[in-house]
Amino acid sequence: MDEFLQAAIDEAKQGLVEGGIPIGSVLVIDGKIVARGHNKRVQQGSAVLHAEMDCLENAGRLTAADYQKATLYSTLSPCDMCSGAILLYGIPKVVVGENVTFQGPEAYVQSRGVEVTVVDNHECKQLMHDFIAAKPQLWNEDIGE
Amino acid sequence: MDEFLQAAIDEAKQGLVEGGIPIGSVLVIDGKIVARGHNKRVQQGSAVLHAEMDCLENAGRLTAADYQKATLYSTLSPCDMCSGAILLYGIPKVVVGENVTFQGPEAYVQSRGVEVTVVDNHECKQLMHDFIAAKPQLWNEDIGE
Repeated sequence: MDEFLQAAIDEAKQGLVEGGIPIGSVLVIDGKIVARGHNKRVQQGSAVLHAEMDCLENAGRLTAADYQKATLYSTLSPCDMCSGAILLYGIPKVVVGENVTFQGPEAYVQSRGVEVTVVDNHECKQLMHDFIAAKPQLWNEDIGE
Repeated sequence: MDEFLQAAIDEAKQGLVEGGIPIGSVLVIDGKIVARGHNKRVQQGSAVLHAEMDCLENAGRLTAADYQKATLYSTLSPCDMCSGAILLYGIPKVVVGENVTFQGPEAYVQSRGVEVTVVDNHECKQLMHDFIAAKPQLWNEDIGE
């Protein structure tokens, strides 16, 4: 198991412990995790802090040169908003735990030059499967449905 | 002048007073402003709170039915991230103060079914012109350049 994806899964699990939606993310630059995040819809009543957004926010204000060396890990395929953040900052690589539960605009992101790698990790899928079975309305809210 | 665009401009000016980037936004549902926001990069050291994101965050957790009746106003053309948030939540209408200083992926957003109206407002342009002349590096950071 990729240690960075494992760190993103750990974030997802932390979100679950907090009563939140179990999606996690880490930002890696030069082989080191510079920020971690997880979905904060429940915990902070947030409409914008998806895991990837929380991670980017926790990373703080970075330079374009920083982002251009970065890889963003997420346990779930980034939605339109999170994909847009990846494009805004020119993050060149995204590693996705799974895209079976939900698939964001991966083809569009790739067409804009981003390398997207989908791992198809069982634990990522299981976390979401169990969560959506338990709280379908919360999940729908998180993806605008 | 559209009262809602004026409210977004007022938000932009508030941001400037705070030492921030002068971009403002309001969210309108059923003819009423339900949330206001402005860019918080400087004020909160935020990488994700562009004006539109701050506005959506201030609106709190809304239902899909709420978003589907909404119009998002922004003094400046929404970037990839903010456009992605619009797509995520299915906001059907966006009113843009100007897209001369910066233009986000308007054609893509339109291709996904969003109605985008560009007002080409002089005050919106002047605010950004003066700000970028004074603080070009801050502006570049905000758009990932």
